[in-house]
This record gives sequence, C-alpha cells and structure tokens, in this order.
Amino acid sequence: RRGEMARSTQLIHNEVFRAYATYATIVLLKMMLMSLITAYFRITRKAFVNPEDTASFGKGESAKKYLRTDPDVERARRGHLNDLENIVPFFGIGLLYALSGPELSTALLHFRIFTGARILHTFAYLIPLPQPGRGLSWAVGYAVTFSMAYNVLKAAWLL
Amino acid sequence: RRGEMARSTQLIHNEVFRAYATYATIVLLKMMLMSLITAYFRITRKAFVNPEDTASFGKGESAKKYLRTDPDVERARRGHLNDLENIVPFFGIGLLYALSGPELSTALLHFRIFTGARILHTFAYLIPLPQPGRGLSWAVGYAVTFSMAYNVLKAAWLL
Amino acid sequence: RRGEMARSTQLIHNEVFRAYATYATIVLLKMMLMSLITAYFRITRKAFVNPEDTASFGKGESAKKYLRTDPDVERARRGHLNDLENIVPFFGIGLLYALSGPELSTALLHFRIFTGARILHTFAYLIPLPQPGRGLSWAVGYAVTFSMAYNVLKAAWLL
Repeated sequence: RRGEMARSTQLIHNEVFRAYATYATIVLLKMMLMSLITAYFRITRKAFVNPEDTASFGKGESAKKYLRTDPDVERARRGHLNDLENIVPFFGIGLLYALSGPELSTALLHFRIFTGARILHTFAYLIPLPQPGRGLSWAVGYAVTFSMAYNVLKAAWLL
Repeated sequence: RRGEMARSTQLIHNEVFRAYATYATIVLLKMMLMSLITAYFRITRKAFVNPEDTASFGKGESAKKYLRTDPDVERARRGHLNDLENIVPFFGIGLLYALSGPELSTALLHFRIFTGARILHTFAYLIPLPQPGRGLSWAVGYAVTFSMAYNVLKAAWLL
Repeated sequence: RRGEMARSTQLIHNEVFRAYATYATIVLLKMMLMSLITAYFRITRKAFVNPEDTASFGKGESAKKYLRTDPDVERARRGHLNDLENIVPFFGIGLLYALSGPELSTALLHFRIFTGARILHTFAYLIPLPQPGRGLSWAVGYAVTFSMAYNVLKAAWLL
C-alpha cells in the first residue's frame, strides 16, 4: 500500500505535470480574484442584488435603493463568466494534454501563452482597453486550448 | 499493457486521492442539485425564459405571461453560478493538491471544511439567512482553496 | 527521473483513460463552440453589451443603439451556461470514474451517451426543438453523470 501511494503521488515529480500544476493554479487563482473584484465594486458602488446584503444600510426604502445594477459590477461579472467559459476548458484539456506526454518546452509554451493571454484579457476587460485588445487576448487563449485539444485527440483517440 | 493499466487505475487506492474523489464528487453533486432546485422553482412559480417551455400552458398571450423572472428562481440561479465560481477552483486546485502528496489528515481537513462551508452557503443563500452567514461560508471555502493552492505551488512550482 | 516521467505519462495508454480523454475533449470543444455561436449572433444581430465593442459603428448615439439584448444571443448564452453547469460535473466526476477502474465497455457506454445527449441538447436549444426535446436530452446527460458519481463513491468512499 505504501509503495503504491508513493508511486501515484509522484505524478507531481513529472516536469510537464509540475508545469501544468503551476500554471493551472495561477489561472484558477486569477479567476477566483474576480470574486473579490466584483465584491469590491458592489461595496464601493453600493449595488447589490440580494435584499439581505443591504440590511446594514437600514430598513425598507432606504436599503431598497441599493438593490440595483452598476456598470462596473456588471463588467467584473462578465469578466468572471468569460474566465469560467475559457479557463475551465484550459484546465480540463490542459490536464489531459499534460498526461499525453508532450515535450516540456512545447507544453511550457502552451501554458505560458494561455496564462499571459488570460491576464491581458482581464486588464483589457476591466480598464477597458479599446477593441480588438480584449478580442485578441481572448482568441489567443482559445487557440492555445484548441492546439492542446488537437494533441490530446492525436494521442488518446479511442471513440 | 495489463500491468500499466492496473498501475494507473490504482491512483484510486491512494488514500488522499480516495478522500479527494469522495469530497469532490459530493460537492459536484451538490452543485448539480441546483439545477433541480431552479427547475422546481420555475415550475411551481410558473416563471420561464424559453417560449418553447410554456407551450403546454396554451398558445399566444396566455402562455406569454409565464415568460417572466421570479425572485426565487433568480436566487437559485445565483446560488448555482456561485457554486460554479467556487467549486470549479476547488475541484481543479484540489486535484493538484491531492496529487502533491499531502498528509491524509491535513488533506481531509481541507476537503471537509470546504464541503461543509459550501453546503452551509447553499442553505444561507436559499433560506436566506441574514448576513454575514452567506458571506462567511463563502469566505471559508475561498480560504481553504487558497491554502491548497499555496501547497500546490510550493510542491510543483515550475514556471 | 526519466523512469518516473515515463510511468506517469503512461496513464494515456490506459484504454479507459484514453476513452475518457477523447470524449471529455470532444464535449469541452463543443462547449467552447458556444462562444463562437454567441459571437456570430452578436455580430449578425448587432447586439452588444460592452460600449467598446460598438466603437467601430460610430460615436455617441449611433453606436449606443447596438448596446441591446437580442433573443438569439441570449439563447446561445443560456445554452453556454447550461453546458458549464453540466459538462463541468461530467468532466470532474468522469475523470474520477475513469480512474476508479471500470470496465472499458461500461465506461464507453457512459461517455458515448453523455456526449450524444449534450450534442442533442445544443441542437434542441438552438433550433429550438419543442419540449420535451431539450428537457429529455438534459436529463439523460444528468443521469449518466449521476451513475458515474455512484460508481466513484462506491470505489473511493473515504469520508
């Protein structure tokens, strides 16, 4: 039993897997950061969606006026949803790609470009930068995930 | 071939991985439950978003009045989205954490606290409990995921 | 080191894992496709949400009129969110299921039915098909994920 445990935990000693674990954790933390940014805008803009969240501002009409949408809050929420739509496929396809035995340098290239693109995307969304800044950063991350998917299917194809 | 297959499927015999598989499955099932709760509220409150979903209520204006938003439906949907935003990072970072060779007792502590916090969060959202009930249960799950991410980066860091 | 690397990357030679990698990649790519469908409807229907996305249509009021919602755009977005809500649990629970040592034929049955159901669900949502077309395709995918979760808990249960 002990031998098996040691063996399976050693996936973390595989260099490609270590690189994947590092970048996957970084982009997942970046995605989690969007919750804090949304909360920051909700509190500073006083724009809430749940009545129980405005109870500390008083009762009745005086609290009700804070149940509203705010452009900055909505923008942060859209950035968060876009992260879910793009970082989830990166996490999933990237894990299978890391296990498909790619060269370390090729794998690092994929992980680094994706991570850089998603960080740029967040800045492009929140500042906001003029288009096609956000569009391009989105497309780069999308293309990297697609390239990894192609490599997974090439290595694993069993339909 | 047979030997390799046996070896790789034995990840499930690693105790930390078994604990992870158990708690990850429980929180993913809990997240899936939100679909049923939303459907329950849509049907009992007669509040739908797709015209084809109201066709059984008749044609034209008589069905159109059920294309509306309802506070309970929207609340369940927000709870579901919050699960996606928080359970996805737990699943991803938790998987890497489970493979990074932590002590079983430390790992169990992380998994149990996160799972408890997310179940509390759902109750706090749906009842709803007065704040800071929901906020605190969210923050506890967030902190647990952050702690696991720190351990993954410490074990795997390869930039 | 080299021996360990070889060993861990060989997970991709496990037939159940290869089948999982294939179908998981296909459904994640299908989910990513929803971004392109939403973008297609946004551009052809001229219905945007970010002011910077309409800048190429002119300044001021002439561009502002394109900041609006469109039924086709919203329908594609709901399909995308439904994918996130259902394909994320399939990816997570399916991964643990693939590692729990199921029979290849049973595993293939789960993966194939889920993948088929989600492709049908997308057509049912976008065409749209009359109910219960979309509802049934959703329920089939949900039931498959539930069946895999049961098998994971049976194999891994360590609370």
